[in-house]
Amino acid sequence: MIILDGKRNDIGNTAGKYAKALFDVFKADAVTLSPYLGIDGIAPFLKYTDCQSFILCRTSNKSAGDFQDLQTDNKPLYEHVAHKIVEWNEHSNCGAVVGATYPYELKRIREILGFFIPILIPGIGKQGGDIKKTIEFGTNSKGDMAIINSSRGILYKDSSARFAESVRSEAKQLRDVINSYRMLKT
Amino acid sequence: MIILDGKRNDIGNTAGKYAKALFDVFKADAVTLSPYLGIDGIAPFLKYTDCQSFILCRTSNKSAGDFQDLQTDNKPLYEHVAHKIVEWNEHSNCGAVVGATYPYELKRIREILGFFIPILIPGIGKQGGDIKKTIEFGTNSKGDMAIINSSRGILYKDSSARFAESVRSEAKQLRDVINSYRMLKT
Repeated sequence: MIILDGKRNDIGNTAGKYAKALFDVFKADAVTLSPYLGIDGIAPFLKYTDCQSFILCRTSNKSAGDFQDLQTDNKPLYEHVAHKIVEWNEHSNCGAVVGATYPYELKRIREILGFFIPILIPGIGKQGGDIKKTIEFGTNSKGDMAIINSSRGILYKDSSARFAESVRSEAKQLRDVINSYRMLKT
Repeated sequence: MIILDGKRNDIGNTAGKYAKALFDVFKADAVTLSPYLGIDGIAPFLKYTDCQSFILCRTSNKSAGDFQDLQTDNKPLYEHVAHKIVEWNEHSNCGAVVGATYPYELKRIREILGFFIPILIPGIGKQGGDIKKTIEFGTNSKGDMAIINSSRGILYKDSSARFAESVRSEAKQLRDVINSYRMLKT
């Protein structure tokens, strides 16, 4: 599965062209989108009912809270986004992006989303997110419905001629750690 | 001047690569950025002190208010973004994007920004924004410090062989209308 992590966000007309480019031309199976413009920037992607759109909810970076944590109606902005994701999930093709670096927020967002909306979880590996808590709070009772991603932690593991081998080994090791925590849930 | 309207937003490491691509490789003079990830996604662009970064504040689209109008500490999210733009303007290379379709919000944002931060204003032309109010609220006492943009209204004016002529005429006409309102201020 190809997830094109472009975090696109634009007015409806332009979003429609981006959706066409990402899904039809680049043949992505899933994309990441940013919610600042509201439904207009999301809807053209959701029309591709066999493709998944992961919407930034609580991001993994240090300054994620600059705006995402602002409180309104007794809840932070990221919870408003989570509720909108539930509302926009008419065709069961929405997802949320939540950083592994914020386990409390991940837990809260999983509560709002329920167990039928997948969460794309970056932030383990290089960014230092906690894998155990990520599985505990991010997945369903079978340890499913989360896509846990490490990019730099694997890609930049080794720049020598043994690159392919090292990267394979690192990816397998991470998979095994993830699966060991998933086993604890079932 | 080339304004690359890509509305980029990503974690610091990736934002740094985007900044390099947009400014160094594509040679853009200015870019548009989306604020959802906070300063991490903005800072790498601001390091290019001779380039301008326009940050989405109140966008021109219909659903702009989905999140941008959420009230927190007695002000909407877009005003929080405007205050951050002022804070982030250390090298005098920040700007705001505000849609001409929302004159009241434009007025409010100009009040927060003062007269030394430029505003990129889409939404006239195809999207139906009001040019008179755009000049009245968006510019300084000389009618400056705003970049008023029409894309589709000009680009798609004519698909016949007379395209070049029609587009030129449309652009000139719009320029004249803009300037006539700017004259009223001085």
